[in-house]
Amino acid sequence: MTITDTNTVNNGVNVEALLGAREAMTGAPEAAKFTWKATNQWVNGTHSRTMIHDFFGVGAPQAHRETFALETDHPELFASEDNGVTPVEMVLAGLAGCLTAGVAAVAQHRGIQLRSVTATLTGDMDLAGILGIDPDVRNGFERITVRYEIDADATKEEIEAVVAQSQKRSAVFDVVTNPTNVRVEVA
Amino acid sequence: MTITDTNTVNNGVNVEALLGAREAMTGAPEAAKFTWKATNQWVNGTHSRTMIHDFFGVGAPQAHRETFALETDHPELFASEDNGVTPVEMVLAGLAGCLTAGVAAVAQHRGIQLRSVTATLTGDMDLAGILGIDPDVRNGFERITVRYEIDADATKEEIEAVVAQSQKRSAVFDVVTNPTNVRVEVA
Repeated sequence: MTITDTNTVNNGVNVEALLGAREAMTGAPEAAKFTWKATNQWVNGTHSRTMIHDFFGVGAPQAHRETFALETDHPELFASEDNGVTPVEMVLAGLAGCLTAGVAAVAQHRGIQLRSVTATLTGDMDLAGILGIDPDVRNGFERITVRYEIDADATKEEIEAVVAQSQKRSAVFDVVTNPTNVRVEVA
Repeated sequence: MTITDTNTVNNGVNVEALLGAREAMTGAPEAAKFTWKATNQWVNGTHSRTMIHDFFGVGAPQAHRETFALETDHPELFASEDNGVTPVEMVLAGLAGCLTAGVAAVAQHRGIQLRSVTATLTGDMDLAGILGIDPDVRNGFERITVRYEIDADATKEEIEAVVAQSQKRSAVFDVVTNPTNVRVEVA
């Protein structure tokens, strides 16, 4: 597949580079070991700001082109100032961004031209958990639904297969659907 | 505790309002059932934008003061344009924001004045998973570490107890450490 050919599919994903990375990392497993990093600073009340800039991978320190700042807060409904999305909405955004990047990459790899991709995510949560009302209710989401609307040069079945493959290879889908060990320390 | 008294602790969290919400929702369990929502739109390549505005809770449609836009992308290292944080970094930011909001709220409730709260998060990930190199490697984080540095009018033990209680009541900590059912559909 030659993605530079104007007659072929172009979803803006450099699949050759990703396949090259896979080949390179297959021969050098240490290069595939990444560490992502985030630095969070409390602002006031439930408002905090997380800065994201550097990370580690391919055996060396790496950095984003710029420092990204992400704000989280609680809405006015909870007597907060609503200076940003809630942390749980931020997780929905991470899940959405991961699955959609995967849809674009898999479609590119399969020669499917995308025209538009939209996903609507809903996360149900019973606040009886985090408010400590009912010990049998969990703090997090009861369930999450992701609904894609995709316009592409492909059949419904091909589009469904692209979404399924994206789900299979999604880092955030894995984080949300499977347990991860989190250690919280105080310096 | 009177948080309006200038001589007392003020972390900017309205604990009375939260306790009031808990009392109100204890008597009306349906009010505690929330649905958070996110709408994601593919931009190009691995870049997508998630809009967050409305949600449902306390038995009625609710909305943020404004629409928040969150951008995710992959870094230039992966032949992408780095137009935003990676989706997995966004999850770290959500985790950080959730735990830190909890630290402020719990400290307020316990009469502990915070001066500064910083958390450094690292998430280790072996890309042999998402690149499909090794089927035994998961796609998500191998582990996450959250390290707090907190300056407050409290002993080290009191600060550690505040962080532990925040962790116990954190929605995103639950999402990351326990499995959640995610249904992905194509319209």
